[in-house]
Amino acid sequence: MSSWIDWASVRSLYPWFNGSKDKTFELYTPDLVEKSDVVFLALPSGEAMKLAPQMLAKGKKVIDLGGDFRMQDTNLYSTYYQAEHTAKGLLPEAVYGLPEWNCESIRTAKLIANPGCYPTAAILPLAPLLKEGLIEQQNITINSLSGISGAGRAGSVELSFCEVNESASAYKVGTHQHIPEIATALESITGLAPEFTFIPHIIPIIRGIFTTITCDLTRSASLDDVTLAFEKYYADAPFVDFTSNQIPAIKDVVNTNMISFSFSEYQKSGKLVLHSVIDNLIKGAAGQAVQNMNLMCGFSECEGLR
Amino acid sequence: MSSWIDWASVRSLYPWFNGSKDKTFELYTPDLVEKSDVVFLALPSGEAMKLAPQMLAKGKKVIDLGGDFRMQDTNLYSTYYQAEHTAKGLLPEAVYGLPEWNCESIRTAKLIANPGCYPTAAILPLAPLLKEGLIEQQNITINSLSGISGAGRAGSVELSFCEVNESASAYKVGTHQHIPEIATALESITGLAPEFTFIPHIIPIIRGIFTTITCDLTRSASLDDVTLAFEKYYADAPFVDFTSNQIPAIKDVVNTNMISFSFSEYQKSGKLVLHSVIDNLIKGAAGQAVQNMNLMCGFSECEGLR
Amino acid sequence: MSSWIDWASVRSLYPWFNGSKDKTFELYTPDLVEKSDVVFLALPSGEAMKLAPQMLAKGKKVIDLGGDFRMQDTNLYSTYYQAEHTAKGLLPEAVYGLPEWNCESIRTAKLIANPGCYPTAAILPLAPLLKEGLIEQQNITINSLSGISGAGRAGSVELSFCEVNESASAYKVGTHQHIPEIATALESITGLAPEFTFIPHIIPIIRGIFTTITCDLTRSASLDDVTLAFEKYYADAPFVDFTSNQIPAIKDVVNTNMISFSFSEYQKSGKLVLHSVIDNLIKGAAGQAVQNMNLMCGFSECEGLR
Amino acid sequence: MSSWIDWASVRSLYPWFNGSKDKTFELYTPDLVEKSDVVFLALPSGEAMKLAPQMLAKGKKVIDLGGDFRMQDTNLYSTYYQAEHTAKGLLPEAVYGLPEWNCESIRTAKLIANPGCYPTAAILPLAPLLKEGLIEQQNITINSLSGISGAGRAGSVELSFCEVNESASAYKVGTHQHIPEIATALESITGLAPEFTFIPHIIPIIRGIFTTITCDLTRSASLDDVTLAFEKYYADAPFVDFTSNQIPAIKDVVNTNMISFSFSEYQKSGKLVLHSVIDNLIKGAAGQAVQNMNLMCGFSECEGLR
Repeated sequence: MSSWIDWASVRSLYPWFNGSKDKTFELYTPDLVEKSDVVFLALPSGEAMKLAPQMLAKGKKVIDLGGDFRMQDTNLYSTYYQAEHTAKGLLPEAVYGLPEWNCESIRTAKLIANPGCYPTAAILPLAPLLKEGLIEQQNITINSLSGISGAGRAGSVELSFCEVNESASAYKVGTHQHIPEIATALESITGLAPEFTFIPHIIPIIRGIFTTITCDLTRSASLDDVTLAFEKYYADAPFVDFTSNQIPAIKDVVNTNMISFSFSEYQKSGKLVLHSVIDNLIKGAAGQAVQNMNLMCGFSECEGLR
Repeated sequence: MSSWIDWASVRSLYPWFNGSKDKTFELYTPDLVEKSDVVFLALPSGEAMKLAPQMLAKGKKVIDLGGDFRMQDTNLYSTYYQAEHTAKGLLPEAVYGLPEWNCESIRTAKLIANPGCYPTAAILPLAPLLKEGLIEQQNITINSLSGISGAGRAGSVELSFCEVNESASAYKVGTHQHIPEIATALESITGLAPEFTFIPHIIPIIRGIFTTITCDLTRSASLDDVTLAFEKYYADAPFVDFTSNQIPAIKDVVNTNMISFSFSEYQKSGKLVLHSVIDNLIKGAAGQAVQNMNLMCGFSECEGLR
Repeated sequence: MSSWIDWASVRSLYPWFNGSKDKTFELYTPDLVEKSDVVFLALPSGEAMKLAPQMLAKGKKVIDLGGDFRMQDTNLYSTYYQAEHTAKGLLPEAVYGLPEWNCESIRTAKLIANPGCYPTAAILPLAPLLKEGLIEQQNITINSLSGISGAGRAGSVELSFCEVNESASAYKVGTHQHIPEIATALESITGLAPEFTFIPHIIPIIRGIFTTITCDLTRSASLDDVTLAFEKYYADAPFVDFTSNQIPAIKDVVNTNMISFSFSEYQKSGKLVLHSVIDNLIKGAAGQAVQNMNLMCGFSECEGLR
Repeated sequence: MSSWIDWASVRSLYPWFNGSKDKTFELYTPDLVEKSDVVFLALPSGEAMKLAPQMLAKGKKVIDLGGDFRMQDTNLYSTYYQAEHTAKGLLPEAVYGLPEWNCESIRTAKLIANPGCYPTAAILPLAPLLKEGLIEQQNITINSLSGISGAGRAGSVELSFCEVNESASAYKVGTHQHIPEIATALESITGLAPEFTFIPHIIPIIRGIFTTITCDLTRSASLDDVTLAFEKYYADAPFVDFTSNQIPAIKDVVNTNMISFSFSEYQKSGKLVLHSVIDNLIKGAAGQAVQNMNLMCGFSECEGLR
């Protein structure tokens, strides 16, 4: 039984693959997994937890781009994904695939929970500051502006051009599934449980996330300390770019695996203000997945990502 | 000497006036002022303060859409507009033209300082809460997303389609001229001097502002108190629309003089979150100017605005 | 049995009606028709022909914004709409609602077939030239670029922001239902059956149509003759604007009931080139329907449209 | 004297180079040319003809992305570029860099005139049909829709977001400098001088060109002949993709060096209709320049372009 997908079918779904006729596409079958070294899963919530166990049992490395394995606390999963977790036994071996922080665990992992787009954009600027005690754990505000591709490729009135273009709004305030993911990952990385308010917005662009974070510097912390903290953790990170003097724009990083962020002090209120940008489909999804694969397989971290 | 502008010249600048050939356009001359009852000024910073004195001396009502008369403190003006104020004598009679708060003063005013777009979007949701003591005066964060028309009609690389589309960024963080305007107006209205952090963003739409405000409810305040406060001040305001259960989108108000806002409590952090939308060119500029004119002239407040 | 629609339901579907709470919305019932003088039908293909007979029988004026009554030849209807016509008896009394050409018939009509958007954009520039014998009847090419709202408000992958933005394409080439409508209307107006090639394109804007027409001047015709023909038919048309020296842009007419067009001779090929713009939702739909109602009811043609 | 450009300067102009800090940028100096094997020129009109002679004299291969060397007839150059040609002596050795047609000449060329974006989009579908005598030489209409990046990176009101978004128009009808380039290249390739009408349009996208061509099949030609002609010339062309049954969209080829086109017969008029898409910055500029370099240097044609 052949599982190959003919080229006309591929083309009708993804016409932009027209220059890639040398590539092949196959329907998923268990046999296909046998022939693979690494499996990337990009499935609706709850599906990866059904498939991953048998793949891992066969000794395959699995990178899940969904949310099934990102939180150890299955109560959080139930609350925000509104479904029971059915593969709790796998959670202890799942590694949160944020290479800038979990590089060593990723190298030896069998199961990677590839981070969500908003969490990647928020955690990378915040983690060094929390870990070094430079910012307060209260009054952290995270405002993110996301392109529409974050919602997936689906037909709905809400995502139609005429609803989205020339407009903007916020959504899922207080209920977005990335809220517990950010909390879990920050606690895992820093040992702290900071209190934050995360407001996701939708703006009329296809891809990219712009995030503005406001928080309080601790009494003794200075902007120089902030610079040092970022240099300490990210000086050698190939996909992290930071600066104190130029606010990034989404277009700076679209089509790349980079996160770029800036920081400054807001004189009137004394707040520290951070701005980060990523391409939600690359550093926020597929690119970071490849970065994880590179580490898992002993390749150069940047292979295929420049 | 005729000051009429021929139709071809008008059309080459504003081709969308093609259905308005019955209207006439004249170059500014002092004589033109003589024939007018009300003068609207929409000029670069610093120009209105040169022209307004002679217009007021002739007994004309003046509505200035720029920033020249919005702040009584000329030191603030100098700092944020980077120029000296040359008509300080007029400031005491200038009325900040926010009809929902200054209606009575507007009715008798000769000189109106028409509010800026961002201040309109931020002050209207915040003022009732501060005035009623429902929110703390610290840790107020105001994140605004603005369309490009807010920057005026000018040719620059920064405003070009290829730079703006499929991107987003923040700008003038800590230095925007609307920071002291918001502070001044809130203090004038509420008697308080709250501390806020205002972050203006640019997104790829022509017109509209979406603003997200996070702040702390005071210990005894509830969401019901918030509802009551808004009803107290805005129940009869024809251009204010608020709700606790549906986040507005910019397209809800584009091409109207409405401000629409929502409010909710963010469970994890206990913050009060507000979202407001306006059309920056109407409620944030020309529409509000007409609303002010209506009040000054004794017309119905909604005349020409429905 | 009440047929009123509560405000919350209206708002959830059309949040931009938030400033129109003084208006009321009712579900369709036959009783509702009794109370009306004029009925506007905006329904999926085939539905108007079911409802119109009983409305007309009650003596109501009916303006149908769909395609059910635009062509007298029901074979054409069957071919392009892929359904049988079930109200053939009404066709003789249906008037094609293009006020610039059928004004007198519209005034006395009971049933108006409101023109399609593309036909409006193409017929108005072409009809005077054909009628005066200024252009050849072969080699007419009509290329139209339409905003997405032309496809209606529906959820589909094809209309989603991520598919539409930063792209463009042609569609329904040779099969669009406006092909026979253009042919029928041109023949009805001019008595000729010109041969044309109509190519509809989709571009990433919400509303508006830009049409480029190329055709051949007849041997003796000049650009001056073209100007005279347009003046002859449109000098007093309140919603037609034409010029030989400035190519219009869609934004010139968005939110208006205007059609604006330009014309010039292309030196190399000797072709006459015409460019027209309309707002597909106004002159191409609802605005023209109101214009028709004004004529039917004896109101000023421009009532409610300036 | 160092000609290196510091990273901060690069970043301020091109912030999206932030992931390319391993690359270096140097100001142009004659010395820089000495160190190079191939020189790409991307300059305002008239500048390449000043610099190319000395580069060629040093034995360098030169690829000019501008229009200075695309037409042998300097009268055409003067007419459409409104300037005198000052390097006529180089024209005989300039090769029009359209690899699908001039591959052998390109391999041995010293000076390449890299084709314009519109000509690439129009010539590739038309040339096989003309060369095989399948279409008539009259009544060819070329309607192209271009993204804004085709106008270069400049600050002007015409290119500003607020003018361009939610609009569309045609421009330079009959005067665009690509008119004589298309004519010259078609004649050079096919030996014929077909008459065509080219209408460039601007639509609100950053990059990409969608072109619709209508023309007449010759009496004996069929769609099968058209297919055979395209197969004859493009079966092995790595960057050409064609089909008779799916109209391409711009997004199919953005960020690639592909041209994709479709063809069909329009029943009512018997016209052959072709639709092509390219990324104007890649196949229409830089990508095709690299393709030319690959051929000049004996590299694989696709090197760096997949």
